[in-house]
Amino acid sequence: MAQSVTPRSEDYSRWYTDVVQMAELADYAPVKGCMVIRPYGYALWEAIKEGLDRRFKATGHQNAYFPLFIPESFIKKEAEHVEGFSPELAVVTHGGGKELAEPLIVRPTSETIINAMFAKWIQSWRDLPMLINQWCNVVRWEMRTRLFLRTTEFLWQEGHTCHATAEEAQEETLRMLDIYADFAENDAAIPVIKGRKSETEKFAGAVRSYAIEAMMGDRRALQAGTSHFLGQNFARAFGTQFLDKDNELKYVWQTSWGVSTRMVGAVVMVHGDDQGLILPPRLAPIQAVIVPIWKSDEDKSAVLPVARQVLAQLEGAGIRARLDDREEVSPGFKFNDWEMRGVPVRVEIGPRDVEKGQAVLARRDMLGREGKSFVPQEGLESRVAKLLATIQTDLFARALRFREENTYQPRNYAELLEVVERGFARAYWCGSPECEARVKEEGKATTRCIPFDQPDEPGACAVCGKRAEEVAIFARAY
Amino acid sequence: MAQSVTPRSEDYSRWYTDVVQMAELADYAPVKGCMVIRPYGYALWEAIKEGLDRRFKATGHQNAYFPLFIPESFIKKEAEHVEGFSPELAVVTHGGGKELAEPLIVRPTSETIINAMFAKWIQSWRDLPMLINQWCNVVRWEMRTRLFLRTTEFLWQEGHTCHATAEEAQEETLRMLDIYADFAENDAAIPVIKGRKSETEKFAGAVRSYAIEAMMGDRRALQAGTSHFLGQNFARAFGTQFLDKDNELKYVWQTSWGVSTRMVGAVVMVHGDDQGLILPPRLAPIQAVIVPIWKSDEDKSAVLPVARQVLAQLEGAGIRARLDDREEVSPGFKFNDWEMRGVPVRVEIGPRDVEKGQAVLARRDMLGREGKSFVPQEGLESRVAKLLATIQTDLFARALRFREENTYQPRNYAELLEVVERGFARAYWCGSPECEARVKEEGKATTRCIPFDQPDEPGACAVCGKRAEEVAIFARAY
Repeated sequence: MAQSVTPRSEDYSRWYTDVVQMAELADYAPVKGCMVIRPYGYALWEAIKEGLDRRFKATGHQNAYFPLFIPESFIKKEAEHVEGFSPELAVVTHGGGKELAEPLIVRPTSETIINAMFAKWIQSWRDLPMLINQWCNVVRWEMRTRLFLRTTEFLWQEGHTCHATAEEAQEETLRMLDIYADFAENDAAIPVIKGRKSETEKFAGAVRSYAIEAMMGDRRALQAGTSHFLGQNFARAFGTQFLDKDNELKYVWQTSWGVSTRMVGAVVMVHGDDQGLILPPRLAPIQAVIVPIWKSDEDKSAVLPVARQVLAQLEGAGIRARLDDREEVSPGFKFNDWEMRGVPVRVEIGPRDVEKGQAVLARRDMLGREGKSFVPQEGLESRVAKLLATIQTDLFARALRFREENTYQPRNYAELLEVVERGFARAYWCGSPECEARVKEEGKATTRCIPFDQPDEPGACAVCGKRAEEVAIFARAY
Repeated sequence: MAQSVTPRSEDYSRWYTDVVQMAELADYAPVKGCMVIRPYGYALWEAIKEGLDRRFKATGHQNAYFPLFIPESFIKKEAEHVEGFSPELAVVTHGGGKELAEPLIVRPTSETIINAMFAKWIQSWRDLPMLINQWCNVVRWEMRTRLFLRTTEFLWQEGHTCHATAEEAQEETLRMLDIYADFAENDAAIPVIKGRKSETEKFAGAVRSYAIEAMMGDRRALQAGTSHFLGQNFARAFGTQFLDKDNELKYVWQTSWGVSTRMVGAVVMVHGDDQGLILPPRLAPIQAVIVPIWKSDEDKSAVLPVARQVLAQLEGAGIRARLDDREEVSPGFKFNDWEMRGVPVRVEIGPRDVEKGQAVLARRDMLGREGKSFVPQEGLESRVAKLLATIQTDLFARALRFREENTYQPRNYAELLEVVERGFARAYWCGSPECEARVKEEGKATTRCIPFDQPDEPGACAVCGKRAEEVAIFARAY
C-alpha cells in the first residue's frame, strides 16, 4: 500500500491494472482468463446491482434463475447465435465420472435455455408480457484478458422479455436502454451516448442492438450496456408461441439486455486519477472516512471520542462512514490509502479541531487546499451529505466535459483516421460494412453506435464520400 | 391453477413436487438434474439471502467472488476432499474450440480455489481474521434429483474464514452455526437442532462439522445449514501461512459454512399443507393480498377504490402487499390461488364491508371461520402488521410442537428401528461407525447430529448396548 500507481500519462493500461489491484478491487485468479473480485470490488458491484435491480423491479421485471448448463443442441438452434458464440464456448464433456451423451455448454448468455422455458410457460396473450431478469455468471473463452473488462467468466444481469407485438418489444428494448443510461449517468456519474449498433456490431441473433457508450480516461470507448430487439428469431427456433386475442397462434416478440461487471472497469477508468480510484458517492461502499490525528496519548484521548461521535452523526444520517482508528500506521499513510480506494470525502479531526469544535472535510475529487473546508462538528452530517451530492454532480460534469472536449466531427477520411487516435469521431457514414471495415483495418476504430441524437441534414460519408443519412460514433474501444 | 395438490397423507413426495410446481416456485429444466427457479421461488430465495447476508455483514464478513472453474490439480491437493467430491464432479475439457491442457472442474465448493488466493493475500497476523463469504452457484452431479432439495446445480452461500488460532476458528464455526439457527428459527420459523456431525457424516476435508437439523412435515430430517472447523487441512495443502506476533511462520486455522436453496425446500415442507404453501411472514414475497369482491359494476365501483386505499395503507406501513384486481377470474379462484402461494394474510373487501367501513382478514395458517376476523378499515395496517407477527410466532410454535411430538427416546435397538419409521430418535450412541452403519443399513436412518443439548448422565448405546457418553439424533433424511 506504500507503492504508488503507474501514472496514466506513462502507461494507461498499467495504470488501470495497478489501480484495480492496489485498491483491492480484483486480482488475477490461478485459472486462465478468470479473476477474483475482492471484497472492496464486490461491494462496488453490489451497489451497481442494487441501483439496477431497483430500476428493473420498478418497471415490473422479476428475477429468476435458469441453469448454468445448456445442451449443445440448444445453442445450435438459432443460426446466427451459434455462429457468433461458438469460438468462445466452454464445454463440459464429463459428469459424475462418465462421459456425457450430449456435451453441455457453460452459458455464454441464456436466450436459448430461457426460450426452452418460455415455450413451456407461455400459452396465451394473458401470459404476456413476460418480464424476466437473471443475475448470474457467464463464460466466454478469452485469450487476452483484462480485469473486469474482459475475462473468461464474468458476472452480469441478463433481462429476457416476451411481448405480444413487435411494437411493445421495441418499446421495451428502448425502455431498458433508458434505464441503463439513467443508472450510468445518475448513479455512476458516467455520461453515455445512446444509439443503435451497426449490423456488424450487433448481438448474434438480434434483429437490432442498442448500446450505451462511454468515453474512458484514455479517450477510448467502452460499451457499458446493451439492449437487443430479438424479433421472433429465438421464438421461432424454440417454438415460443401464444394464442392471441384473435384466437391465432403467434410467435412472441422478444428482447434481451445486459450489464456486467465491466461497469466496475468503467467507473475506474472514467473517474480515476494518478492517486487511484475516485468513486461516485452513490456507488461508493464507503462515502466518508474519518481519520483522527494524534501524536501523544493525551491527544488521542481527546480526539478519538470526538471521532466516534462524528461517526455516529454520519451513520445516523444514513451516510456510509468508516472510522480509521488503526494504531500501526500514520495519518499520512491513511490519507493515501483511502485516496487509493477513492472514498469521496475524508473527515480529519486533530487536537486543535477538537478544541475549536470543528473538523476538516477533504474532497477526493479535488486534492490539496482547494478541496478542503473547515466545518463545525455540529451539523457536520448535513454538510457531508451536501458535499457528497456536489461531488456526484461534479464528477458527472467533469466526465461530460472531457468527452465533449475529445469528440470530433471529421469531414473526410484523413481527418477521421487522425481524430480516432485521440478521441471519438462523430462522422457521417453511408452505412456500408465495407467503409466500416476499412476504418477498423486502417484506423483500429469501430463504429460504437449510430447515436439517437442526429444532425438535421444528410451529409457525405467520411470514408467513401457517398451520401450518408446518419452520423456514427467511430472510436477505438475496449 | 384449478388443479389441486396431491394430499400429503396420500403421497408426501408428490405433494411436495405438486406444491413447488403449482405455486410456481420452480420447474424442471431441460438439462438433466437442473432446475429453473421461477420468479416467486426466486423472490423467496432473495428474502432468505437478505436475512442471512444482513447477519453475515453485522458480524464483520465481506462478500467476494471467486472463479467458477477450479484446476483439477487443486481439487486433488487435499486428500479427503478429493475422495469425497470426485464422484460428483462436472468437468470442462474444451474451451474456445480447443482441448484444455488441464481439465477444469466446475466448483462443487470453493475451499481449494479460495485457499489459493488466501495464500497470496495473507502475510501477517495483521491480515487476520479474514472473513469472506461468497454467493454463487455450485455443481454436484446428481442422479436422482428433487426440486430445491437435490439438484446438479444449486445456489448457495459459502463462508470461508482464516484465523490465527484454533480457538478463534472454533469460535467462528459455532458463531456461524448460531447465525444459521437464528435465521432458521426467527425468519423461516423452522425450529432446528444444533449439533456436531459424526465422523462419517462430516464434510470431506473438515476436522469437525456442525449442522442445524430440522424436521420436515413427513417427519424426515433435513440438514438446513452446515458449519465446518477445517483446522489446518486446506492451509497445509495450499501453504496458507502467516507471520505471527512471535515472528514465527504458522498455518492459518480455517472455517467454512454454507446454506443453500435447500432452505426453500425446508420452508415448503415444514409449513405447507394440502392447500399448498404457507409462508412465514418474514420471508413471504407478498405478506398480504387484497381480494376485492364484486358481482355488479356498481359494486365494483364502490369496492375497488376502497381496496386501493387499503393497499396504500398497507404499503405505507411497510407491508409487502398486492391487490388482486383481475377481471377474468372469480374471488373463489383468487382465494385458492393465493392460498396455494402461501400468502400469510388475505384481506377481503366486498360491498357490505365498504358500507360498514370494515374488511375481513383471513389467516393462511388457519383456514375457515377460525382464522377470520372483521376489522375496521381505519388502522387496518397496524392490525395486519400485528397479525403477521402472530402468524410468524404461531408457525414456529406449531413446527416445534410437531417435532417434539415426533421425537422419541428409544432405549434399545428394536425401539430405535421402530421409531425412526415415524420420527426422530434421540438415542444413546457409543460413537462407533459400525453401530451407525448398522442403523443405516437396517433402519435407513443416519445420525443427523450429536446435539449440543445432552443429558447429564452417560447411558447404554441403543445399538450395541455398550457405554455411550452422548446421545445422537437418528433419522431418515433428505
